Amino acid sequence: MARAPRSSEFALIRRYFAPLAATSPAALGLADDAARIVPEPGRDLIATTDTIVEGVHFPEGEAPDYVARRLMRVNLSDLAAKGARPEGYLLNTAWTAAIDDAWIAAFATALGEEQLRYGITLAGGDTVSTPGPLTLTLTAFGSVGHGRALLRSDAVAGDTVFVSGPIGDGLFGLWAVQGRDLPGALPGDREALAEAFRLPEPRLALGRGLAGEEGEPRLAHGCADVSDGLLADLGHVCEASGVGATVDMAAVPLSDAAARIVAARPDLLTEALAGGDDYELVFTAPPEAADAILALGRATRTAVGAIGRIVPGEGVALRDAAGRIVDATRRGFSHG
Amino acid sequence: MARAPRSSEFALIRRYFAPLAATSPAALGLADDAARIVPEPGRDLIATTDTIVEGVHFPEGEAPDYVARRLMRVNLSDLAAKGARPEGYLLNTAWTAAIDDAWIAAFATALGEEQLRYGITLAGGDTVSTPGPLTLTLTAFGSVGHGRALLRSDAVAGDTVFVSGPIGDGLFGLWAVQGRDLPGALPGDREALAEAFRLPEPRLALGRGLAGEEGEPRLAHGCADVSDGLLADLGHVCEASGVGATVDMAAVPLSDAAARIVAARPDLLTEALAGGDDYELVFTAPPEAADAILALGRATRTAVGAIGRIVPGEGVALRDAAGRIVDATRRGFSHG
Repeated sequence: MARAPRSSEFALIRRYFAPLAATSPAALGLADDAARIVPEPGRDLIATTDTIVEGVHFPEGEAPDYVARRLMRVNLSDLAAKGARPEGYLLNTAWTAAIDDAWIAAFATALGEEQLRYGITLAGGDTVSTPGPLTLTLTAFGSVGHGRALLRSDAVAGDTVFVSGPIGDGLFGLWAVQGRDLPGALPGDREALAEAFRLPEPRLALGRGLAGEEGEPRLAHGCADVSDGLLADLGHVCEASGVGATVDMAAVPLSDAAARIVAARPDLLTEALAGGDDYELVFTAPPEAADAILALGRATRTAVGAIGRIVPGEGVALRDAAGRIVDATRRGFSHG
Repeated sequence: MARAPRSSEFALIRRYFAPLAATSPAALGLADDAARIVPEPGRDLIATTDTIVEGVHFPEGEAPDYVARRLMRVNLSDLAAKGARPEGYLLNTAWTAAIDDAWIAAFATALGEEQLRYGITLAGGDTVSTPGPLTLTLTAFGSVGHGRALLRSDAVAGDTVFVSGPIGDGLFGLWAVQGRDLPGALPGDREALAEAFRLPEPRLALGRGLAGEEGEPRLAHGCADVSDGLLADLGHVCEASGVGATVDMAAVPLSDAAARIVAARPDLLTEALAGGDDYELVFTAPPEAADAILALGRATRTAVGAIGRIVPGEGVALRDAAGRIVDATRRGFSHG
């Protein structure tokens, strides 16, 4: 079947992307090669950026709808980890010859739905061609009250470690997408886990609550989103803060599907805690903030649980249900 | 010869990129997945982004030094066109297997030199792997006095059209890099033109002067940098402003090398004006601002010349030395 030729760069922008920027004063109508961002007085700007490559970060042939939504959400998760409110984004697309107008139309439609869902608008970007693979970069801007951004470096010994709900669906969801065996899984678990991997939910409301609004206390100390894996990302917090952590494995919240897999193969629990792509928040706070944090979880409809403690020293130590340290070496792993 | 294996993502960032961010409070030590930008009160933030792909935007096997400098400068040129002062940048790198530590070290060294030259520091980014080609995205932030950003949409009929000099070295320099014939060129012209293509000079001081500081008038109306080509970029200004323009071909400043080529092949003058990659500024201003603009050119050591006029209507009309319209159809061209 012959493919329809793709429209020119200008036509693509006008047809598919200009509507995504229509309500954004920052975008300057996409007529300029730049975005103009006028932050509200008293707010700091947060910028975060992620590049995804077909065949590396998402499967070859993934539907444009999922590519768009996941690209948006992994960036918004970084804003959530800073306690920031989404404001706008830049989109850099390197299209391959295989990407036609229909693909781009579906991609842009999904972005438009995500914009409505998360209150963010396109402010600019760049469109180029590539001999492949499809490579997409999204740079998201958010704002947070001056000095209120949640940082990795603010954890303090004595803090409680909290995580938002379920951990492990990122890893098991990737396995589901890859068609790998899921021991103990019930019918429907594979689809549910694959969907959790493909469409993570950035914890924006939780993050904003942890940063607090003017006149409120900032609830959290150190904070990160779980992209590299719970243990790795908590490890980043510890390293940036010059502290260590202990995590009670049994306290880490799992989805029902993940709990069934771990019940069948208990050794997979550490895999789940080391796996990535959960896009939950791991954060630390003084023990006396626990009630306020659990109330914030309820108010934002986010499962939040205490899973451990920040201690002097370094590294993340895992304890089993009997309190024995089962793995004190995990401090992060590299991630292509 | 066996290639040394490349360091892990974290090691790469720590060794080569963290030093580039060492003086930037926005970078949060590159320990967070985000940059925190606290704009000076009363200044607007400008963000611009460009993606370059090996074999599309720069030749395969181009030296890392040139790749780094050109990537930086094409983005800074977009800031210059807004009248913005560089503040910081995000860097997204998709490395191929062929990119080793030595390549990255040379790339980072060149970025460090560009940072010193232009007063900008690394604030964050993302590092991924790709099966190829090498794909790099740079997102630059700048600031400009509130409401002073130069826009494409502000040209007014009756304005004079100015351009900073020389135009055409981008096209002839690309030809030089590609080894194409350069009629009329003298020994040394090829090298000079290739260097002009590889290392454009963003007109930051000129742009900032055109935007003006607090208490000064904003000198320019519409403004763009010449990346797609003088005629295309002036066409973008006209389209965004709802006006047309006439350009006196003979008034467009050429380098000595480009002038020799055009003397040998007069038909190449329109090619030079349509060609891209000059990274000069094309801007409009009321005729009475001419003296101040020419003085600004001298003060910033930038060649600036009046080349035409903004008129009611649409499109860019070219006039030859006798005042005849030779081409009234050029309004831009698409650019992969």
